[in-house]
Amino acid sequence: MLVTDLYELTMAAVYRRRGMAAAATFGLFARKLPAGRGFLVAAGLDEAVDRLLAWQVTDADTRWLGEQLGTGEATFAPLAGLRFTGDAWAVPEGAVVLADEPLLEVTAPLPEAQVPESMLLNAVTYQTALASKAVRCVLAARGRPVVDFSLRRDHGIEAAAAAARAGALAGFAATSNVAAAHELGVPATGTMAHSYVQAVGDERAAFAAFAAAFPASPTFLVDTFDTAGGVRAAAAVIRERGLGDRAAVRLDSGDLAAEARLARRLLDDAGLPAVRIVVSGGLDELAVDDLAAAGAPVDVFAVGTRVGTSADAPSLDSAYKLVEYDARPITKLSAGKGYPPGPKQVWRRPGAADLVTTRDDEGPPGARALLEPVVRDGRRLRPAATLAQARARLEQDLAWLPDDAKRVRDPAPAACVTSDRLRRLHEEVRAGLRAASAPPSG
Amino acid sequence: MLVTDLYELTMAAVYRRRGMAAAATFGLFARKLPAGRGFLVAAGLDEAVDRLLAWQVTDADTRWLGEQLGTGEATFAPLAGLRFTGDAWAVPEGAVVLADEPLLEVTAPLPEAQVPESMLLNAVTYQTALASKAVRCVLAARGRPVVDFSLRRDHGIEAAAAAARAGALAGFAATSNVAAAHELGVPATGTMAHSYVQAVGDERAAFAAFAAAFPASPTFLVDTFDTAGGVRAAAAVIRERGLGDRAAVRLDSGDLAAEARLARRLLDDAGLPAVRIVVSGGLDELAVDDLAAAGAPVDVFAVGTRVGTSADAPSLDSAYKLVEYDARPITKLSAGKGYPPGPKQVWRRPGAADLVTTRDDEGPPGARALLEPVVRDGRRLRPAATLAQARARLEQDLAWLPDDAKRVRDPAPAACVTSDRLRRLHEEVRAGLRAASAPPSG
Repeated sequence: MLVTDLYELTMAAVYRRRGMAAAATFGLFARKLPAGRGFLVAAGLDEAVDRLLAWQVTDADTRWLGEQLGTGEATFAPLAGLRFTGDAWAVPEGAVVLADEPLLEVTAPLPEAQVPESMLLNAVTYQTALASKAVRCVLAARGRPVVDFSLRRDHGIEAAAAAARAGALAGFAATSNVAAAHELGVPATGTMAHSYVQAVGDERAAFAAFAAAFPASPTFLVDTFDTAGGVRAAAAVIRERGLGDRAAVRLDSGDLAAEARLARRLLDDAGLPAVRIVVSGGLDELAVDDLAAAGAPVDVFAVGTRVGTSADAPSLDSAYKLVEYDARPITKLSAGKGYPPGPKQVWRRPGAADLVTTRDDEGPPGARALLEPVVRDGRRLRPAATLAQARARLEQDLAWLPDDAKRVRDPAPAACVTSDRLRRLHEEVRAGLRAASAPPSG
Repeated sequence: MLVTDLYELTMAAVYRRRGMAAAATFGLFARKLPAGRGFLVAAGLDEAVDRLLAWQVTDADTRWLGEQLGTGEATFAPLAGLRFTGDAWAVPEGAVVLADEPLLEVTAPLPEAQVPESMLLNAVTYQTALASKAVRCVLAARGRPVVDFSLRRDHGIEAAAAAARAGALAGFAATSNVAAAHELGVPATGTMAHSYVQAVGDERAAFAAFAAAFPASPTFLVDTFDTAGGVRAAAAVIRERGLGDRAAVRLDSGDLAAEARLARRLLDDAGLPAVRIVVSGGLDELAVDDLAAAGAPVDVFAVGTRVGTSADAPSLDSAYKLVEYDARPITKLSAGKGYPPGPKQVWRRPGAADLVTTRDDEGPPGARALLEPVVRDGRRLRPAATLAQARARLEQDLAWLPDDAKRVRDPAPAACVTSDRLRRLHEEVRAGLRAASAPPSG
């Protein structure tokens, strides 16, 4: 059965009945950024394109819908076989995007462009939210590695895979999620739980057994009983086995800055200055920023729940708006400035704000077009971006982004500007709407 | 590849090498409730049991792990073929549960009980978070129907199916998610988007076409241009077609209480008192409560993003703690009261707080045991609960729950109490830990 909101199918059924098959363009964008975000990192676009090309209304779908809604088979029968045969433009996976900038534009006969709305929003909204959260952790860590420990509290297995991927896209060094590491080709990371130390019963014996099994880069969890004792037990094992150049300790509770300083001092006193310190436990970009700003001797930040669920903003105010139908530009009269009509292009200008134009406008000199054609006549124009390509794109766009948008505390959201031509078109369409609604109807 | 955190496999590898295969019991519970929750609704338990019985470490897994960690094949080879052959006890799907009450207890040879930690926490944490949020919407709606519109912003397709299911479990009347409705056997609901009215261009023509296609129970979205005009257009179509006993209008923006009053007055004035009013747009249980408390004439509440992501608390402080190994009760010395050692039972007492005992304790008279055996020797003891069974269980438990825990605003979290025997056991184990840690080690 199709993963879609029912109304996509009821609308499409009416369109089919009425022969409304002219070309429609929808734009997918975020109306505004969540609080505490200065920019977004586009993610889920490649999966959205996969979904766009994979759906098809089956006879079984139309039969079930007819039963469900009590309409009989005839109402939905005209939808059988419907699939996507149109075009799509998208920003590259990993691109920095801002409020009111289209991430994806879809053009197709109206029913085909309408039905995928829900599945496209579903793919792009949460993945972009997760990547936009993850990149803030990387910025907060000031060059020190960040790793993903979020699997256990992400919203399902699919969401955990997406969280690991969003982290990798944002620049995380590894994930604890074995399946995701395997799928993405990124390092898997992880060590031991408190239960391990408890089951063995003796901290030093537990660490020695672990080091024997994993001599390449063992990380010892040192806060099962008390941190000082745990660090001393780890130090003894590390020295005994000559692991001083490859071992680490992990702190998972308490005042992490104080615990890290204690652990650093004990390790240094034990002649183990190269043993690294990993911290975990409820971290997000603000906690990472606090630790980094305080100069806590942390070498690796392991972030989990709060990042894998984007806990402060688990979604975006995303929309999939009809902007053109049958060559007629469409917008809404709304209280705010609203979203301009028509297919668009976003131009990224060196040292200047993004410029949003109509799609066929020429861009300013030196600017780069953000939206690229990705689907034509229902066929993908090129393969999905690799993780490395998406990461490279993000790095490039981060270099362009103003520093105050990248600030972890109280970022100033970067904003786009609208071209004169697009603004005039928007005003004309709004004026037409106002005129039409002036005499009360009915 | 196994969906698990790497450390589950490194620990299990050490256990296998050391021959640590004695029985271990782990308990899965929430350490505390999120702010604004008076209780939790257990969900994802049946899926957790499915996952518990489905995993198996393959040769391909152990080879890949050996390469990843640079240990060679030998380190992980002893894990090949590992799967779950033990026992599990769980609370029924839909049960009301509280902080520090085990939702699931797993007993098996230590490696088999350790490896599934991440996949069990992943299934139970978010589904319980979603069901616990959804039920508050039902309570806030005071008997009026609530429906799920969350698909587009849930964390993936799996999460959207879980959100629809959590809603259905909590008592929602329907979901917009067609695939989930089909899978769950619940009604699919949905009508039209603003884009539909914009594409047709004329509100009245749009409504008339929709009513022609869906005469059984059409819902007209009336706020594309202005609500008064939209309601009048809908009223005209409803009267023209004699749909006054089955039609509805939907409001999706603005001050919903005021818009609903306006729509109600216009519909009543048009002789259409039975036409229902559906509201949507950023609703959560607090917004539903405001509308219901204000006496807004709303007939159906459609909740979406904030409920499907449990936006104020997208996860729980869940844990999977080792409580017994090789017949040795295990706990941690921690700052708070901590989680007692050993396998447990929770007794639900009429008119009294839940009593947590050791598993083999007899319960107080008239009490009902919350945890039931669900897996023995690696086999399910009975099929997963149906949605109707889970709903019935929730209804029963809601009737038991104190009113102040069910309050939507500032609920007073219900809490369990610990039996004297379990408290003594906990104290003994803690005293042993204190004695052991008194002389600094190392």
